[in-house]
Amino acid sequence: MRCIVQKYGGSSVADAKRIKQVATRIAETAKNGSRVVAVVSAMGDTTDRLMGLAREVSDGPEPRELDVLLSTGELVSCTLVAMRLRTIGIDAISLSGAQAGIRTDNRYGKARIAGVDTKRISTELDSGKIVVVAGFQGITEHHDITTLGRGASDLSAVAIAAGLNATRCEIYTDVEGIFTANPNFVPSARKLDHIGYEEMLEMASYGAKMQPRSIELAMVYNVPVYVASSFASSTGTMIHGEVDSMDSVGEIRNKARSVPTESNVAKITVRDVVDRPGLSASIFEPLTDADISVDIIVQNASVGGTTDVTFTVGSEDLQQALNIVNDTAKKIGAGEVLSADNLAKVSVVGTGMQNSPGYASTMFRTLAGAGINIEMISTSEIRITCVIEAAFIEDAARALHKAFDLDEIS
Amino acid sequence: MRCIVQKYGGSSVADAKRIKQVATRIAETAKNGSRVVAVVSAMGDTTDRLMGLAREVSDGPEPRELDVLLSTGELVSCTLVAMRLRTIGIDAISLSGAQAGIRTDNRYGKARIAGVDTKRISTELDSGKIVVVAGFQGITEHHDITTLGRGASDLSAVAIAAGLNATRCEIYTDVEGIFTANPNFVPSARKLDHIGYEEMLEMASYGAKMQPRSIELAMVYNVPVYVASSFASSTGTMIHGEVDSMDSVGEIRNKARSVPTESNVAKITVRDVVDRPGLSASIFEPLTDADISVDIIVQNASVGGTTDVTFTVGSEDLQQALNIVNDTAKKIGAGEVLSADNLAKVSVVGTGMQNSPGYASTMFRTLAGAGINIEMISTSEIRITCVIEAAFIEDAARALHKAFDLDEIS
Repeated sequence: MRCIVQKYGGSSVADAKRIKQVATRIAETAKNGSRVVAVVSAMGDTTDRLMGLAREVSDGPEPRELDVLLSTGELVSCTLVAMRLRTIGIDAISLSGAQAGIRTDNRYGKARIAGVDTKRISTELDSGKIVVVAGFQGITEHHDITTLGRGASDLSAVAIAAGLNATRCEIYTDVEGIFTANPNFVPSARKLDHIGYEEMLEMASYGAKMQPRSIELAMVYNVPVYVASSFASSTGTMIHGEVDSMDSVGEIRNKARSVPTESNVAKITVRDVVDRPGLSASIFEPLTDADISVDIIVQNASVGGTTDVTFTVGSEDLQQALNIVNDTAKKIGAGEVLSADNLAKVSVVGTGMQNSPGYASTMFRTLAGAGINIEMISTSEIRITCVIEAAFIEDAARALHKAFDLDEIS
Repeated sequence: MRCIVQKYGGSSVADAKRIKQVATRIAETAKNGSRVVAVVSAMGDTTDRLMGLAREVSDGPEPRELDVLLSTGELVSCTLVAMRLRTIGIDAISLSGAQAGIRTDNRYGKARIAGVDTKRISTELDSGKIVVVAGFQGITEHHDITTLGRGASDLSAVAIAAGLNATRCEIYTDVEGIFTANPNFVPSARKLDHIGYEEMLEMASYGAKMQPRSIELAMVYNVPVYVASSFASSTGTMIHGEVDSMDSVGEIRNKARSVPTESNVAKITVRDVVDRPGLSASIFEPLTDADISVDIIVQNASVGGTTDVTFTVGSEDLQQALNIVNDTAKKIGAGEVLSADNLAKVSVVGTGMQNSPGYASTMFRTLAGAGINIEMISTSEIRITCVIEAAFIEDAARALHKAFDLDEIS
């Protein structure tokens, strides 16, 4: 029997009206003869509201307490969806993350899933119920509630789909699927019907609106993930392992698949770092400990035994990162620490780019032609990323989208 | 070592400012060298807001789902109080009802406490923490969340105090203590320093703002309960087993202790019920099954083998009760069913009234003197209650307060 795990984001359950719509969509899936598990996020801006309350009473809310507080948002939405399903005549039950068997470590606020015990979910499905699960949360071995980090309801859904060996995991959100670029920046951006896990993972890490950990987990357990709008009935994007043969002609022709962009990027440079083993660890370990994600790292060739190290962080982390790096620079006897904000990343992603250096030069030439200076460069096998001034991000995305033949075929 | 359980109601934790005040009060208690467990209700009107959401998506929300939904309110407030305590330098931890070991049956929405396993609370207290518990909720043996009924955070607090063998249970609320009458009705009403469990139980059942089940539980486990304002620093009322010797002179002199009142009372009369065994069961069991609380029951002397049965219900239950009673009346071949709303109860309570029939006649004479008609009468060993028209409730309370020498001693 088909088993579908559906995930509905915060905007999809923002109020009673939308909760009713979501319940109707879940019911339709069940009527097609599938077992259905729905994973829901907190309603609209609930999480922000709860964070606001926490900040009102505390300068630095204790992570364990914060996790219990934030976990209530998903409990509210999952019970409301279950109630609505019963009201329209569909047997349903809500389960908290704990009841759904989402076991995690005790890294409050960013817990890792240690395993999913789907026993209770399966029992409820066997009894003919639709199961509505509170996303974003789990429980430690000591019965304390954890949350999996912002946006991690996707992760809950994929983990449950993997645990149930589900037919697929459907992510319903406020976008219509995965696009070749941000449609707000690039009017000619096209929705992709299919995309491979690896390309999606690069896109998610470099600006597409998906949680990279979810894609990774889906890839490991080979769970097909379908991303679509919870408001429109248009076809979304299927993310899965083998896509080329299923692609449309237009998409096969293009070896570059998309131009993801990311704003709110800042960079930090540490000057005159003595070039010896252990250098990277001494700079980056304190940042990791503070849970600051460092992305692109560039190290100049050593000149006179010292080197400059430059790396990017999210703008929201810049101040905290600078405090930490300034301390480190003093300790290791490095030179001055510089920073710049208001940067952005623009990337070109596609498995077809593997071993094709021509793509890099096309990218650099296109940006130069648009008068855009490149501040930093980073590449993977299937991605090239340039850090540029944030003001140029739309121009860059449009120029690259055109240069790599991604514009809508007219 | 002294162990104090404190309970803070919804108005005491209505916003961030009040949560800070509550945390300060808890911290002061701990600094006096006590182990402290704080039980908190949901913030202000949270429960009403959540009920509103449930009603928007469902005509008759499933009780199990409703309980999970409502239980989130107390989780929010208990985590915020714990966060605040840590911010002011006091080690604290929040526990859900489940984590606090409140085990219940599975009567969702009105669960009964089956037991309290205080192991986790004790462990946390032993490690020097203040424990902040989400009131009003528990968990079934199948790990499903239950709620204990409206206003049942008092019950959570008393049950935990009993389980911990605490020195006392302090209930902080929006009133300054237990009064000889509702001060809004009777300006000369006085706050009582002490009152016995039995008197308090009668008062709680007949209009005083306390949950009768909490008083009962406190009486069974002999937990002293202190009721005071969470806003004012004035002395409250101690409810405990032996009070006479501790009473003030003024209070000893009066054998009647208080004049509780209750509004929103309705009555239903079933005419011409055949007078045979099982009669009461056939009328009242269907009401009990629908969770409608029936209070005063009066049955006329049998005339010609039939009798009239009259009883009171809360105004809010009148319509549902009438539907049920009309069905029953048809089934048992009784006569017409009449009803009246806009009634109220006024009582006189005091252990000194035991075996003193004079009190009843004083009460009836006083009401008659004030031109107030008595619709129904009910008595216990230490209480006399009259049902009257709601419009006269203030007049009745004032007249009785004076007649039983309860007015402030000037």
